Amino acid sequence: MESKYDACIEACYACAAECNRCATACLREDDVKMMARCIALDIDCAEICALAAAVMARGGEQVSALCRVCAEICEACGEECGRHQHDHCQRCAEACRRCARACRDMVAGA
Amino acid sequence: MESKYDACIEACYACAAECNRCATACLREDDVKMMARCIALDIDCAEICALAAAVMARGGEQVSALCRVCAEICEACGEECGRHQHDHCQRCAEACRRCARACRDMVAGA
Amino acid sequence: MESKYDACIEACYACAAECNRCATACLREDDVKMMARCIALDIDCAEICALAAAVMARGGEQVSALCRVCAEICEACGEECGRHQHDHCQRCAEACRRCARACRDMVAGA
Amino acid sequence: MESKYDACIEACYACAAECNRCATACLREDDVKMMARCIALDIDCAEICALAAAVMARGGEQVSALCRVCAEICEACGEECGRHQHDHCQRCAEACRRCARACRDMVAGA
Repeated sequence: MESKYDACIEACYACAAECNRCATACLREDDVKMMARCIALDIDCAEICALAAAVMARGGEQVSALCRVCAEICEACGEECGRHQHDHCQRCAEACRRCARACRDMVAGA
Repeated sequence: MESKYDACIEACYACAAECNRCATACLREDDVKMMARCIALDIDCAEICALAAAVMARGGEQVSALCRVCAEICEACGEECGRHQHDHCQRCAEACRRCARACRDMVAGA
Repeated sequence: MESKYDACIEACYACAAECNRCATACLREDDVKMMARCIALDIDCAEICALAAAVMARGGEQVSALCRVCAEICEACGEECGRHQHDHCQRCAEACRRCARACRDMVAGA
Repeated sequence: MESKYDACIEACYACAAECNRCATACLREDDVKMMARCIALDIDCAEICALAAAVMARGGEQVSALCRVCAEICEACGEECGRHQHDHCQRCAEACRRCARACRDMVAGA
């Protein structure tokens, strides 16, 4: 029934998982001080993506407003992660960019 | 340190608790069919309020955008709950209105 | 790095999505009163699955305890959903059972 | 109606807020590497406390199992935070201990 949201839900959950993995991996890096903003954005991004996915799956009334915020945090997190060479950051950056696109597409088509 | 958000965090958590209480109480009403939109809004509102509180407590970069969405869902949920005479709906409507105001104030002052 | 959790994370997110879809679909059924426990379990199950997935992705210290609770709610929700003939309930029941197994396997292998 | 959970809900939300504040403050410390476990526990604790509060407010069937896990993460987080002299860690440790006690009381009385 909510099938028009399925691709975006999947992208949100994939992004949430990568952000959470990246946060923990960043905390284990030697240069953790350099990763502080990355960690902070990872956690916010993971929580917002999971919420957006839940509200989309329920077909909630605020899906568009929420996916707009989700796209913003994904873009900020993807940009920050993209600056670091760690594999986990690069994987996370890619998941963030993909999720931002899915959220923008979802808002445009909603 | 994040003291400027404290009143809004408190209003968000109070609203989340009332929304969750209201959802369960609605599910136990005889006229549950009439309460369907109320239940759906309660759950979305509770989850968005809890997320907004978490991001505010962390001083996250998307606080304003998120509190704007939070105010919108609180206003929608407060309006719907306000239509029903059940005590739990009236209590929830009041918590929603108070949280919406706190979020609007927070965005204006951020 | 947390690859041993990947299958369980995927099952948790799939279950969360089905539970949230089922909750909304139940609220739109004519016999919504009969679906009240299903709706309540759906929401709890969706939130617990999403949390378990987040903590697993971060490799958190409480993963086993949390996946044990997750398996319990999935079993309760799957059993309740399995009693209803609606397609969304049957799909949700299947996702719950799969997630319960993934959580039990994860705890056994952790 | 769920009044027997009210004290525990309040303690959970207070703990979630302190954990989230502590996580951000830790990320801004010079000795952030020393704070890595504290940050990781703060985030898990904040998310589990918020979930426990939501499930309690809904009077969910898994409240006891969830509050048991919540007490465990609060005790681990409170112990770790208690080792650090930063004000935010000491405040967080106190909120964690109080929440752990509230969860243990709630489980004993449920």
